[in-house]
Amino acid sequence: MKYSIITIGREHGSGGRGIAQMIADELQIPLYDRKLIQMIAENSGLAESYVAQSEMRRTSSFLYNLYFDSKNLPLDDQVFLAQANVIQEVAKKGPCVIVGRCADYILRNEPSVLNVFVYAPMEERIRRIAEEYGEKANDMQRYLQKIDRHRSSYYDRFTGEKWGEPHNYHLLLNSTVGLKTAAQQIITLATGKEQA
Amino acid sequence: MKYSIITIGREHGSGGRGIAQMIADELQIPLYDRKLIQMIAENSGLAESYVAQSEMRRTSSFLYNLYFDSKNLPLDDQVFLAQANVIQEVAKKGPCVIVGRCADYILRNEPSVLNVFVYAPMEERIRRIAEEYGEKANDMQRYLQKIDRHRSSYYDRFTGEKWGEPHNYHLLLNSTVGLKTAAQQIITLATGKEQA
Repeated sequence: MKYSIITIGREHGSGGRGIAQMIADELQIPLYDRKLIQMIAENSGLAESYVAQSEMRRTSSFLYNLYFDSKNLPLDDQVFLAQANVIQEVAKKGPCVIVGRCADYILRNEPSVLNVFVYAPMEERIRRIAEEYGEKANDMQRYLQKIDRHRSSYYDRFTGEKWGEPHNYHLLLNSTVGLKTAAQQIITLATGKEQA
Repeated sequence: MKYSIITIGREHGSGGRGIAQMIADELQIPLYDRKLIQMIAENSGLAESYVAQSEMRRTSSFLYNLYFDSKNLPLDDQVFLAQANVIQEVAKKGPCVIVGRCADYILRNEPSVLNVFVYAPMEERIRRIAEEYGEKANDMQRYLQKIDRHRSSYYDRFTGEKWGEPHNYHLLLNSTVGLKTAAQQIITLATGKEQA
């Protein structure tokens, strides 16, 4: 494989997770998605529910690059450190697909990592979370915009970069091309195999 | 072909034009790039040199959607109207690749159009314009940033959208994956053929 590790950032409701699953299935490599939460909880000693919500909390300042004893860091920074440890560990184990959690940034010095971002138009995201995920909100658009803001501020805070900004990725795909088509695009790029 | 018309927006120095050429060659379809300048000049009756520079001029306001007699519009708006006419005409003729010139926006209501944006890291763009295009500037980075600002404000002015913003495209590619690889990715998506 040209790129053995694939990170997938995604807008909620874009189908990015489904695409990640298709890639992992076809390449027969592990998918780290919700499984990461459990691993980060174990690594940090914090509750799974706390870790799961960390992307949704607004916190005060960026401390990751400062020198602190990790036990004295605010809890969310401890989560991020544990997350960085876990993601670096799973990347060492071999080829895999990692969804979200700033994996592109955490693995930025690894040459064999392919960074992808999946997005979709708002109306398509609303349709998917309602019909496929069964999620409910009074105002679906505001609900999704809130999730975007949280993911964006989490990413910005810990990476100093902008979530979804093209230059942070190799490839960005609008999932309206089709989830299977998107998965095939990513597989082709990762494996370095051209189409027939 | 799933998408018969391919529009390619690109950062200067990203290799986007080379990618467009590879696609046109492989699919044996026309490439509209610098040739558009001549066609727009003929359509508008304005000088080629004036048309060529229109993306680089800062102008005052967005008038395209207002009702004006086109002969009374400011010259840059006349250029844009001619550009829209020419691009709609070439799109009617059949499959083609169109580089820049807001073609994605001008053809936004055509279902068979694939919109792509090609970009690259600043250091790679500087290397390419110096080594391959033979362009010179005292400060290459400022020179490229200025071109970015002009293309961006031109696009924003006439489309009301943000140049290079993922949601305006189907696919965005970092050309560090390789120009040939990028061209193949776009061809695969346009033709709808999956790799073997």
